[in-house]
Amino acid sequence: MTGQRSDARRNYAHILAVAEAEVAARGAQASLEQIARTAGVGSATVRRHFPTRKALLEAVFKQRVHDLCARAHELRGEDDSRSALVEWLRELLAYSLAARGLADVLSYEPLQDEAGQDSCALTIGAAGALLLRKAVDDQAVRADITIDDLLVLIVGIALATENYTDPAAQADRAFRLAVAGFGADGT
Amino acid sequence: MTGQRSDARRNYAHILAVAEAEVAARGAQASLEQIARTAGVGSATVRRHFPTRKALLEAVFKQRVHDLCARAHELRGEDDSRSALVEWLRELLAYSLAARGLADVLSYEPLQDEAGQDSCALTIGAAGALLLRKAVDDQAVRADITIDDLLVLIVGIALATENYTDPAAQADRAFRLAVAGFGADGT
Repeated sequence: MTGQRSDARRNYAHILAVAEAEVAARGAQASLEQIARTAGVGSATVRRHFPTRKALLEAVFKQRVHDLCARAHELRGEDDSRSALVEWLRELLAYSLAARGLADVLSYEPLQDEAGQDSCALTIGAAGALLLRKAVDDQAVRADITIDDLLVLIVGIALATENYTDPAAQADRAFRLAVAGFGADGT
Repeated sequence: MTGQRSDARRNYAHILAVAEAEVAARGAQASLEQIARTAGVGSATVRRHFPTRKALLEAVFKQRVHDLCARAHELRGEDDSRSALVEWLRELLAYSLAARGLADVLSYEPLQDEAGQDSCALTIGAAGALLLRKAVDDQAVRADITIDDLLVLIVGIALATENYTDPAAQADRAFRLAVAGFGADGT
């Protein structure tokens, strides 16, 4: 925000706070028009800060993504690298189930935006890749897994259970299945 | 449609055909208003046939769901019950990637609607459950898997890769991972 006048900065922070509440209530389908009305600004102002719905979601989830990255760095200290990876994925899934819209923003291919900023998916992916790398080096998980594969599974499970009466219970079952695989030997 | 006058029946068939084209173009977010405009009828008429977006999607995907059920029955004749199950799930994933909106309608908990009609998810689940049962009986997959767990994974992979440049390639990687599990021994 460097170089912006302080009223513009306050304006941005206010719109972002309203956007966070709206996304928490309505998920990824949050209305930009409703955000403008609640914030008491014009739609054009909202669109200047957030040109697309995705840009809005990226801004809304920046802090949560930061928290999840910090958690990945913490878990790198664990001795059991497979458990650390699985635990982190489990926390990512729990976050995605709790915070409506997070799974949507993570469902975009991990890329930088036009301004060269890392997307939430790219940031999360980089943090998770460190845990995955350690588990692969320890031969604790298959070497041909990529962090993108794991994110697709986690984000997918969150999206596919969103409409369930008890998303957490069904998501947990699908997560365990993905970790264990279909094999009858239970490995 | 029994008991409806034939012009009402033609009306329904016409609106459904328009809805199919609109859902193919725009996926689950297809606009009911746009369908009404293209079909040359009022919004109220569309809403009488399809009170909700989900009801519309259920009607649009009825035939595809029927095809997938027929395929499950065919695959029950295969000797290798695990391969048959995996092949059917792969075809369900391919359908979901190709037909925008199908994954959305399958992301609802498998239930009957108010009129006692099976939802697409319930119909698909019943067909898939036969393949799963056979594979479990053959001790070819783990006995604690339910068809709902499998549907969540397949539907989730389709939803989570929808925005990718090459959804099929990333979906295939995630699918193989879910089948095999994380295990370093590759089982």
